[in-house]
Amino acid sequence: MAKDTELLMDEAALNAFVDRVFPQVKDDFHVEHVVPYEITMRLLVGERHLRPGGTVSGPAMFGLADVTVYLMIMALIGPKALAVTTNSSLDFMRKPVANTDLIAKGRLLKLGKALAVGDVLLYSDGMEAPVARAAMTYSIPPAGSAADQSA
Amino acid sequence: MAKDTELLMDEAALNAFVDRVFPQVKDDFHVEHVVPYEITMRLLVGERHLRPGGTVSGPAMFGLADVTVYLMIMALIGPKALAVTTNSSLDFMRKPVANTDLIAKGRLLKLGKALAVGDVLLYSDGMEAPVARAAMTYSIPPAGSAADQSA
Amino acid sequence: MAKDTELLMDEAALNAFVDRVFPQVKDDFHVEHVVPYEITMRLLVGERHLRPGGTVSGPAMFGLADVTVYLMIMALIGPKALAVTTNSSLDFMRKPVANTDLIAKGRLLKLGKALAVGDVLLYSDGMEAPVARAAMTYSIPPAGSAADQSA
Amino acid sequence: MAKDTELLMDEAALNAFVDRVFPQVKDDFHVEHVVPYEITMRLLVGERHLRPGGTVSGPAMFGLADVTVYLMIMALIGPKALAVTTNSSLDFMRKPVANTDLIAKGRLLKLGKALAVGDVLLYSDGMEAPVARAAMTYSIPPAGSAADQSA
Repeated sequence: MAKDTELLMDEAALNAFVDRVFPQVKDDFHVEHVVPYEITMRLLVGERHLRPGGTVSGPAMFGLADVTVYLMIMALIGPKALAVTTNSSLDFMRKPVANTDLIAKGRLLKLGKALAVGDVLLYSDGMEAPVARAAMTYSIPPAGSAADQSA
Repeated sequence: MAKDTELLMDEAALNAFVDRVFPQVKDDFHVEHVVPYEITMRLLVGERHLRPGGTVSGPAMFGLADVTVYLMIMALIGPKALAVTTNSSLDFMRKPVANTDLIAKGRLLKLGKALAVGDVLLYSDGMEAPVARAAMTYSIPPAGSAADQSA
Repeated sequence: MAKDTELLMDEAALNAFVDRVFPQVKDDFHVEHVVPYEITMRLLVGERHLRPGGTVSGPAMFGLADVTVYLMIMALIGPKALAVTTNSSLDFMRKPVANTDLIAKGRLLKLGKALAVGDVLLYSDGMEAPVARAAMTYSIPPAGSAADQSA
Repeated sequence: MAKDTELLMDEAALNAFVDRVFPQVKDDFHVEHVVPYEITMRLLVGERHLRPGGTVSGPAMFGLADVTVYLMIMALIGPKALAVTTNSSLDFMRKPVANTDLIAKGRLLKLGKALAVGDVLLYSDGMEAPVARAAMTYSIPPAGSAADQSA
């Protein structure tokens, strides 16, 4: 992988992109750090992400893994292209610490013409052992095409 | 699989269980139909489940698949046991119809002493082709144990 | 899904295709039955598929699931196109019966322009409960393109 | 994760274990390097692993990923315990180089009382970009129990 690739979007550009395009979740996510093929994201855990006992819900962990790989792709191909999630697999390995932010560390394993694949480890902020792992695949529509899930 | 198994919880009992145990999502889900090893659920789609364009979000689809298999297990083993999601895989195959409920049709493929496995097809209400498929695995803590994710 | 689609290849054509294109495994697999979007395959279990104790190996089950969905696609789009497996997920749920053929029941859930998705249940011949479930995704190269995994 | 854990089996002990317990595949795999929670394996590619064009088959890649995580567990818990694969997910991202060994780099993400989870990147020997990624889950039977897939 050409790790000398230049970023088309840095942390500030990615955070502004989320605010603009996904207003529903703009207060949930924060890009902490991005370099080509690697990204670190934070889920700012709030009441709406919790299950009884204060643990972060499965859908919130799925959403964090999804946005992590998605933004890593955007950082490399720019905000115009529309990638669509086509596959995900997750293992939930440990109970997240109650009422604590989640940190996602993602790496992009493939950025092809039509498909991109990345994987992610999720951590409760400050803990060494991951609470979950995920792999996500995206379909990247050809430039100029209507971006829909008809792949 | 012993499909002559009796249900320990019917639709009304499962819906009451969700209201009591998961107050955060009680207005999201409705058990439509349950028989041993098969269940049909509805996601009552609201603004909070949508992405730009009115399409249902990935986390909302994940959450529907998760609760579908979870309640199918509860229907057979009763509300006392605490099952924990350990693995999921999803394929997102078609764009959901905008502003339309999702219907989940789940089947339980294994109900073992320690692990349960089910799969699910998700549909936009009224459509024939599924928008997504999912498989979910749950760890079932031994009776009497503290139910945590330390399996 | 247009289940009135016509098959481009029937059982005999699919079995002849495997013999010609995959000579390494031609004695392993037999197409039992195919209709649009559904297929039944048999793994003719031999010594090379077994692990100690006579149980069918994981790679043999993976291979059966893979060829099952692949041939279901070929039955609909014909033998000229070259589909490439891009993703798989499997749950191994029960120990296969020793020295017994495996039966795979596959269904095609999506046949798009670029991606196809199917799922499969695997059974020890004669048993009611499945030994494994699988989902497989294939990338379908555009007509006329060099078929490689560069998607 | 207690990365100061001691290994119960080193490279030589793991290779001898494969020879003794899996005679069918003993010429396929070689443990190159193992430290707590990380392992490097080699698939000695032979005619039986290939598909037309000389590319390594999907089942051979599955088998390599499976044995990689399995032996990483054995290295930590010793050869007496019998772990059973319960779940796998794989993304096939690039075409392997023809007639070239595969190298698997695995890491163990969780080693619990009942479940272990690891992930793996597969490479054609000498190449920088991975050909596939995998995650594998194992059920670890309680000490003293009959080891079967009845979890």
